[in-house]
Amino acid sequence: MSVSIGELAVRFGCELRGDPRLTVERVATLSSADARAVAFLANPRYRAQLAATRAGVVVLDAASAAACPAAALICANPHATFARICALLHPEPLGPSGIHPSAVVSPDARVDPSAHVGPLSVIGAGAVVAARAYIGPQCLLESGVLIGEDVRLVGRVTLCRGVQIGARTVVQPGAVIGGDGFGFAQEQGRWLKVPQTGAVRIGADVEIGANTAIDRGAIEDTVIEEGVKLDNLIQIAHNVHIGAHTALAACVGVSGSTRIGRRCMIGGQVGIGGHLTICDEVIITGCTMVSHSITRPGVYSGGIPYEQAQRWRRLVARFKRIESLAERLRALERRVAPAQDLEEEDDD
Amino acid sequence: MSVSIGELAVRFGCELRGDPRLTVERVATLSSADARAVAFLANPRYRAQLAATRAGVVVLDAASAAACPAAALICANPHATFARICALLHPEPLGPSGIHPSAVVSPDARVDPSAHVGPLSVIGAGAVVAARAYIGPQCLLESGVLIGEDVRLVGRVTLCRGVQIGARTVVQPGAVIGGDGFGFAQEQGRWLKVPQTGAVRIGADVEIGANTAIDRGAIEDTVIEEGVKLDNLIQIAHNVHIGAHTALAACVGVSGSTRIGRRCMIGGQVGIGGHLTICDEVIITGCTMVSHSITRPGVYSGGIPYEQAQRWRRLVARFKRIESLAERLRALERRVAPAQDLEEEDDD
Amino acid sequence: MSVSIGELAVRFGCELRGDPRLTVERVATLSSADARAVAFLANPRYRAQLAATRAGVVVLDAASAAACPAAALICANPHATFARICALLHPEPLGPSGIHPSAVVSPDARVDPSAHVGPLSVIGAGAVVAARAYIGPQCLLESGVLIGEDVRLVGRVTLCRGVQIGARTVVQPGAVIGGDGFGFAQEQGRWLKVPQTGAVRIGADVEIGANTAIDRGAIEDTVIEEGVKLDNLIQIAHNVHIGAHTALAACVGVSGSTRIGRRCMIGGQVGIGGHLTICDEVIITGCTMVSHSITRPGVYSGGIPYEQAQRWRRLVARFKRIESLAERLRALERRVAPAQDLEEEDDD
Repeated sequence: MSVSIGELAVRFGCELRGDPRLTVERVATLSSADARAVAFLANPRYRAQLAATRAGVVVLDAASAAACPAAALICANPHATFARICALLHPEPLGPSGIHPSAVVSPDARVDPSAHVGPLSVIGAGAVVAARAYIGPQCLLESGVLIGEDVRLVGRVTLCRGVQIGARTVVQPGAVIGGDGFGFAQEQGRWLKVPQTGAVRIGADVEIGANTAIDRGAIEDTVIEEGVKLDNLIQIAHNVHIGAHTALAACVGVSGSTRIGRRCMIGGQVGIGGHLTICDEVIITGCTMVSHSITRPGVYSGGIPYEQAQRWRRLVARFKRIESLAERLRALERRVAPAQDLEEEDDD
Repeated sequence: MSVSIGELAVRFGCELRGDPRLTVERVATLSSADARAVAFLANPRYRAQLAATRAGVVVLDAASAAACPAAALICANPHATFARICALLHPEPLGPSGIHPSAVVSPDARVDPSAHVGPLSVIGAGAVVAARAYIGPQCLLESGVLIGEDVRLVGRVTLCRGVQIGARTVVQPGAVIGGDGFGFAQEQGRWLKVPQTGAVRIGADVEIGANTAIDRGAIEDTVIEEGVKLDNLIQIAHNVHIGAHTALAACVGVSGSTRIGRRCMIGGQVGIGGHLTICDEVIITGCTMVSHSITRPGVYSGGIPYEQAQRWRRLVARFKRIESLAERLRALERRVAPAQDLEEEDDD
Repeated sequence: MSVSIGELAVRFGCELRGDPRLTVERVATLSSADARAVAFLANPRYRAQLAATRAGVVVLDAASAAACPAAALICANPHATFARICALLHPEPLGPSGIHPSAVVSPDARVDPSAHVGPLSVIGAGAVVAARAYIGPQCLLESGVLIGEDVRLVGRVTLCRGVQIGARTVVQPGAVIGGDGFGFAQEQGRWLKVPQTGAVRIGADVEIGANTAIDRGAIEDTVIEEGVKLDNLIQIAHNVHIGAHTALAACVGVSGSTRIGRRCMIGGQVGIGGHLTICDEVIITGCTMVSHSITRPGVYSGGIPYEQAQRWRRLVARFKRIESLAERLRALERRVAPAQDLEEEDDD
């Protein structure tokens, strides 16, 4: 697909600097772009590459425009504008309307004629697939699953019974939504499975990454609100509730019944305990352990950066004997200033 | 399904307080239940909800019964009794006996006539599926796989060649059992694959979560004993042995050849090194690194709770200079008490 | 398969001690081997088992040969030689050449006649499968995927559009290669998806573990060079570049645009931030957080070994008050040596 930069300026509300008739047909990075490509500059990290770019046109903000050697599409949010241009030039591949003959669709399911059901997918009884939904190859939709309009299941997605997916949501391959929550009663040293009778409700405009698992609720539902973005290999336990527009990076684990607020950002490999509440607009940096609730917006951390191994071993050894440091300090305090209360902060 | 609470009391050995003819048809939480629902109270966390419940009947222990505004099913272990009632009211969906015509089953496999094989499943040569087993849609059973009675593979489960699954075990979607262990010999800066010739043996009454991976043994087998419960996204490396009735929460990684005892409980995101032994009845809290063996039952930890980010950065900076604290303390000790041996605990 | 140890000695360049006509047919551990089995000794951990082995022949180095009670195949690298013998005695099961009738292959794909395509696999338009490749059951190869010679996709592998796999590479079940990278632009409190237009290029002789996810690049490609070994449940984000012969253990997460060098070894559950560079020949031990680049070869760590829980809580409590220790120490220094500069290392 080829489009003039004049049309891009009009369509996406940019100020154009350059010849509006110039056409582009793909996106590229500043350093790899040629005259037929659109690049963008949003992260100052890449600013040094601007001067040497051979891009046909660059999407950037007004502050950077003077330094641009090519045509410029000037706007307040270059990353968002670039995303829209990219979607225009590189549309997601669409399947044809209709059900592939190799798919196994229950006669009791309702699939909108404008939807696509790919090869070797299975759609169970009572499932509903709305208009223009794309069900890629080898997907599994168990009984009672509801798929909203324009949903995109890329391929090999598993939706267990009764799972609901909101409009325009995208699910990457390998994701499993609605597996049984990890619920067991203990009885005489054994575990007795507690049937998980809740479901999973996913809002509109959600993204769910590859091999991510979202468990069904124990009794009530697990809920992912609109606009949530989940990266790959994330664990969402039963009865978790994630507020709108919150984003979780890869390998995060969220334990059962925890509520995460709206517009939070959770870094990679964060572990969040069960039955906690995290309020709106919380940022948690990567590798943090969240073992109690967070009640105020802000940035929270808990990961310790690496060291050269020998030095790290010394640090850990010292840490493990930190109590001895405290005792020696107290002994010294008693000797130097026996009458004074230097120890008020100490709880020994 | 509808059942009288008198029948529930008789069947599950509860003391009934209330009209035995009252019928219920589903489970619910204390706060959402109506007159047709059974709720339960096991966790004191939810005790405040008891007074206001509209449940038809509540499963609880004798100590809580007086505070129950509804009919009561009184028993010693309300969670276990609730699990059984839940299984009665909400039975797992069963497939019809027989093999779906779209499944690809080797003529050399033996599938019990009472078993269910779902659409688009593949069953390899020499595989055996015992009575009443449920093989959900899109499962892959490679050659020589053995499936016990009443096993439930929810759907899209992968069992590589020779894997054995004990009776009544449940496997959630996306689990991969019997993939090659991570075994390579180093040779001149390259890795040479060591064929993994062991298998995986899973006992009876095991649960395996969504997208969990259990590798086949290098030479001998990887073994999961009866009653083990594995949550989602867990990694079990080759030649690991997990003792009966042990439970692992999500995102745990267990490295090769490690033995975990019986009745252990391992929290989420715990990482366990290779060639270790963990004895029976060990509890490890979430996010702990286990780098050496555990020889005594008890509770073990290693995760540090988060802090507000700025405060955390100060703590980490101070930690990284803990050696300097120790040196300054020693200098002070020498000055204050040069003749005394205050440093006996110090290894500088 | 049965082979004489004389032939093994010749084929793999070993010095033979024992009767060359003796035949073996399988591999086993030192402790479980019988007279028809080959065992090996590479790890000194198992040396005690050598004296009692009943193996027909043992692969070991010259230093251990004297202590071997059986025939011996003596070589410089017993583990590598054992790997080769194991591959000879236990070849990977091969499928017959050709396409299983239940597979759905685009008329526009090119599958070499010597390749195997298993049941219920899907191969999209423009995909190419080279000679002797093994595409196991239920694989998904989207449009434009390129599969090199002798590649082995064990089964249920997902390769999204345009992914390239080098010769002899092995991919375990559940792996998802080429899912969309986690790229979103922020706009007025919402996330706007940035189409991911790059692909994934995997070199030759790579291994990719079960349920591992490798995202496609945002604009340019994600690259895994030759000989890289990835264990299970690993996350590789968009635009990551991993150098040749590097190995990552299970549950590692690598964030976007990070470059890892050649011949690195990354332990389990390591978390690596985005936009970092890790040079060649770096070893990172398990559970380490890598939040800044590593510019020198060596060993790096960041995990803290567990403690008994009560003791751990005390350590953490003390750590959280480490600032108070430092303040008390400074107060003491001022009192004892007010004129001296004992605080040069302190930044308070």
